[in-house]
Amino acid sequence: MLNADAKKAVLRMIPYGIYILTAQDDKGGIAAATVNWVTQTAFTPALIVIGVKADSGTLQTVKASGHFALNMLGKDQKALAFTFFRPADLSDGKISGQAYRMGETGAPVLIEALGAIECRVTTIVEQGDHHIVVGEVVQAILERPLQGRPDAAILEMKDLGDNVFYGG
Amino acid sequence: MLNADAKKAVLRMIPYGIYILTAQDDKGGIAAATVNWVTQTAFTPALIVIGVKADSGTLQTVKASGHFALNMLGKDQKALAFTFFRPADLSDGKISGQAYRMGETGAPVLIEALGAIECRVTTIVEQGDHHIVVGEVVQAILERPLQGRPDAAILEMKDLGDNVFYGG
Repeated sequence: MLNADAKKAVLRMIPYGIYILTAQDDKGGIAAATVNWVTQTAFTPALIVIGVKADSGTLQTVKASGHFALNMLGKDQKALAFTFFRPADLSDGKISGQAYRMGETGAPVLIEALGAIECRVTTIVEQGDHHIVVGEVVQAILERPLQGRPDAAILEMKDLGDNVFYGG
Repeated sequence: MLNADAKKAVLRMIPYGIYILTAQDDKGGIAAATVNWVTQTAFTPALIVIGVKADSGTLQTVKASGHFALNMLGKDQKALAFTFFRPADLSDGKISGQAYRMGETGAPVLIEALGAIECRVTTIVEQGDHHIVVGEVVQAILERPLQGRPDAAILEMKDLGDNVFYGG
């Protein structure tokens, strides 16, 4: 029988960055949500995978659009992570108060993020309570020069609080 | 046109843990390789994704077996990460010098790791120079009690050296 306590502890060993996933469908509907289940999976072409809640508006918008942006949060952007745990609100030309521009793929790119990648959806694996969105990286934006390692600049799950996890 | 420098920098923001992926085929052939492209993608059932080099013996063994184990390295196991960058060597009942036991799924579980999950392969997405292996977690082993957050215990890419990356 599966050891549920060990499963939770071992799965929570996987370190995660914190990202805002954004997409816009062809009717102008915009989705933006905090996600953390992300990994690159290939160099050529550059592919990434994101686990996205199956019954979410965000997944519907990503599917309808066929493109998305993954916006990277910096160490000092903890508040933004919590903002996008809630449904996105579009007003005054901002998404939940955040300025954005339209990326090349039509996905909204958050200007205050460290940077972003824009992806074309290649496949969605519909397994589990979150589906596996596979995206090919078609554009990348670095908003400002980085100091040191890129993976030292990003906001991480463990920065959100001692008992904050999404996984296990 | 894709900004290649930005693509590399932004993709390298994704933080990674360091894992040894192990599998055994039905002829007793054992594969063991260091991997880092890992994320959970669903809670129910618990699914994970791993990017595995398309032309590797490890992917062939995982495919032939239909099961694998993902062994979590601890902060003090940097040497082990480098050991399994090389092809696995089976002798004296050890894999490249590492003691193991057979897990419930028939995948080798490294005794010195922090813990491991055993998975059944549900799907392999054959896109890119690494393929996307989707695994359902069917067992988990915590080798010893953890102090603090699980994601603070695991060896990370940035612990391997200032200029060590696998991604971008």
